[in-house]
Amino acid sequence: MGATSYQALSQTWARIYRLAHLHSIAAWDSAAMMPPKGSEARAAAMAEMQALLHRMSTEPQLQGLIDAAQGESLDAWQTANLREIGRDWRLSNALPEALVQAQSLAGARCEHAWRTQRHANDWPGFLENFREVLRLSREEAQRRADASGLAPYDALLDKFEPAMTSAEVDRLFGEVQQWLPGLVQEVRERQSRETIVSPQGPFPKQAQRALSLEVMQRLGFDFEAGRLDESAHPFSGGVPEDTRLTTRYREDNFVQSLMGTIHETGHARYEQNLPRAWLGQPVAQARSMAIHESQSLSFEMQLGMSPGFVGLLAPLLSAHFGAQPAFEPHALHRLLTRVEPGLIRVDADELTYPAHVIVRYRIERALIAGEAQAEDVPTLWDEAMQSLLGLSTRGNFKDGCMQDTHWSDGAFGYFPCYTLGAMYAAQWFAAMRRAVPDLDARIANADFAPMFDWLREQIWSQGCRWTTAELVRRASGEVPNTRHYRRHLEARYLN
Amino acid sequence: MGATSYQALSQTWARIYRLAHLHSIAAWDSAAMMPPKGSEARAAAMAEMQALLHRMSTEPQLQGLIDAAQGESLDAWQTANLREIGRDWRLSNALPEALVQAQSLAGARCEHAWRTQRHANDWPGFLENFREVLRLSREEAQRRADASGLAPYDALLDKFEPAMTSAEVDRLFGEVQQWLPGLVQEVRERQSRETIVSPQGPFPKQAQRALSLEVMQRLGFDFEAGRLDESAHPFSGGVPEDTRLTTRYREDNFVQSLMGTIHETGHARYEQNLPRAWLGQPVAQARSMAIHESQSLSFEMQLGMSPGFVGLLAPLLSAHFGAQPAFEPHALHRLLTRVEPGLIRVDADELTYPAHVIVRYRIERALIAGEAQAEDVPTLWDEAMQSLLGLSTRGNFKDGCMQDTHWSDGAFGYFPCYTLGAMYAAQWFAAMRRAVPDLDARIANADFAPMFDWLREQIWSQGCRWTTAELVRRASGEVPNTRHYRRHLEARYLN
Repeated sequence: MGATSYQALSQTWARIYRLAHLHSIAAWDSAAMMPPKGSEARAAAMAEMQALLHRMSTEPQLQGLIDAAQGESLDAWQTANLREIGRDWRLSNALPEALVQAQSLAGARCEHAWRTQRHANDWPGFLENFREVLRLSREEAQRRADASGLAPYDALLDKFEPAMTSAEVDRLFGEVQQWLPGLVQEVRERQSRETIVSPQGPFPKQAQRALSLEVMQRLGFDFEAGRLDESAHPFSGGVPEDTRLTTRYREDNFVQSLMGTIHETGHARYEQNLPRAWLGQPVAQARSMAIHESQSLSFEMQLGMSPGFVGLLAPLLSAHFGAQPAFEPHALHRLLTRVEPGLIRVDADELTYPAHVIVRYRIERALIAGEAQAEDVPTLWDEAMQSLLGLSTRGNFKDGCMQDTHWSDGAFGYFPCYTLGAMYAAQWFAAMRRAVPDLDARIANADFAPMFDWLREQIWSQGCRWTTAELVRRASGEVPNTRHYRRHLEARYLN
Repeated sequence: MGATSYQALSQTWARIYRLAHLHSIAAWDSAAMMPPKGSEARAAAMAEMQALLHRMSTEPQLQGLIDAAQGESLDAWQTANLREIGRDWRLSNALPEALVQAQSLAGARCEHAWRTQRHANDWPGFLENFREVLRLSREEAQRRADASGLAPYDALLDKFEPAMTSAEVDRLFGEVQQWLPGLVQEVRERQSRETIVSPQGPFPKQAQRALSLEVMQRLGFDFEAGRLDESAHPFSGGVPEDTRLTTRYREDNFVQSLMGTIHETGHARYEQNLPRAWLGQPVAQARSMAIHESQSLSFEMQLGMSPGFVGLLAPLLSAHFGAQPAFEPHALHRLLTRVEPGLIRVDADELTYPAHVIVRYRIERALIAGEAQAEDVPTLWDEAMQSLLGLSTRGNFKDGCMQDTHWSDGAFGYFPCYTLGAMYAAQWFAAMRRAVPDLDARIANADFAPMFDWLREQIWSQGCRWTTAELVRRASGEVPNTRHYRRHLEARYLN
């Protein structure tokens, strides 16, 4: 009995999964472990692997197998898996191998140089590598546009957020821009009358690490299937079977590392709870980057900054750092929900964060469309920051357009996912509260089971079983919208 | 202008090198970083990569390219590179891909289970996996024998120590066995009249780590191109551009970790100083496992336990652990050179170590020849340990035949390299002292440059430029022999 076309495809993608495992671990290692002189050989190794994976998913016989598999008898999960295999195949076939390899090398070179250039505020140095990254990303966008019929920027967005379009992002972000500036202003006025009790450091790194580990434990992170380490830019990586989180510690400020760890734990729990029976197949992957971000923000923002959870954090802080007035629950909640426009996205509060995303979204769309050039970025950045947050970044590249790693890596189209994720997270919690009316009381009582159960059932265990639109509708009963996001922010910041 | 056959081969092996980089880093990660639940997916990923690398080095067109390249105009290094490419090709072509993949999986399974089985002294449990590993290794040996015309065990030995035969090992080990038992007895009698000042612990892990790092620094380890971490079984791994050492710390005993670190630093400096211009090609690899071991033992035994070096260690120990009588140079030297037959190879002193190797060599040869079966190993082990070191391991599997990881991984043919390495190291130091008559005085003065320069010039920078026999002759002016090894041991232990 011969294998079906579906089985042949499934075997190919299982091989791709196994090899991509090594790429993921090497990527984590590059950020968390690798000494500087290893970077050149590492970049070459990873580019070689990307080219190989690309070749595997563009083998000429795959198209015929995909066509044939459509006619085979498949169950619902297999059908979804075939859809995702097809999507993967289309994404890969849009690009020639030479471009994939060139992008991997140019991205690694730009990103590696950026690590020192950023600190040196060296925009001209960065620009040299960045031009090439942008040139290759534009070529990528054009090729993806040709293959998909989407506009070039939309074709990049689709990599991270399948089926999302810039028209839809414009609609959603447009709504946010209507109410957000007024809300920020109102909140800032109120908060100007509040007193903030500043935590008194230093907060030793070892104590911060112990606190992080304890919080991760309470949030259900499986330490038998993952680790916490340090890197300059925190992320959640590795593989679903072995999730690698990173954070960074500043001894004068524990908040960043703590909330960062909670954020990454949300990503990690999604990965650790993807449908195990399907691991190794595309249908078992996380649905999209915005859905992924909705998990980290469910943990960091929806749960982590809720009064109930902050009440649980307070004694933990005293246990790890010694008691002080700033750790009193009410003071701590005020501290965590303090709104203050700033230059740095990753340090931004919940309320001004979307402005940082909109700045980047506007600029990257113009860059990919060819309406702006690499050298225009600092000016565009300064103008957008002035108009959205009233802050200038003139001459300050390191806290301006050089602060993120995304563009140096060629990850154009990623930024919108952060705010889409915040919006989805609010939608999940609204649905959760309908299903579990005493959700907040239970959270305050350290009972996170209702939240985890809901997320596991509605999101984590679904992998790519549904399209994003279907997943959102099934989980929340609504289409993607900004209503719950607005309500959440108003409830939290105007109460 | 078309590329030459040599160039095509060189490109293929450069690709293999880049992909093998990811395999090496994943192997290090598995031992030093990976949480337990990651092991199954990791084993599958690494087996997939081994199968892929095997496929790449057995592509049908390679044979024609290798034949054609023989007729091309090549310089001396290219000629040596082509010889090593040919060797690699022959080694790969001797085995079908299915066997490679089966061995990788069976080895990973056996090794992973062994980690807990060893502590539980669970020989029957281990035997279950080990039978399969042995069966596959015998198949490997037979296939390699068929392809090379060597005897099956010699064909495995040749993987690690090219051109070495069991006849030659028998000759060399036979010499050692003639004088070693008498020497051990004489030394033990002398030492029975000596008083040992035992170091008083505990020795905190952090202090041991700081000491290890300082010693590595002094021994020229490049921390910009490597790391030191912990693992259950210390090793030197990673890639030449990024060398990953591991050690382990016991708070009641600093000697193991310290000398282990010095040992691994010898391996690492070899890797870090392989011919840079050729990195990525087979000719830039370390020459063989015995030559590799000759570097670690040059550092640990020849240098590390020399009176001059011990004199430098003494104040370092006091600085990291606080002064105590055991750290006085003379007392420390006595401690480090104490001879005492024991059960554990990795804890063995310099003088009884070869006995551990001979035990293993005899048994593994019999296993591969089919003269012994997997279930016979504990009895054979006990008999050999009784006869060579007068110690019984009956019923004590964990400190007997289950103590090493080599066989669970299917690495039959590796063990002889340890003692061959000790022999080579003595040959290097004899040659070094002829070239640098005041070598020992300079070492005592913390001037290691003559030693490092000699090793860099004669060994490290040569990679695989020469066959092992040529390398040994060029470096030491002699064929491999046990004369300097014996002299070294007599000079150190009977003085």
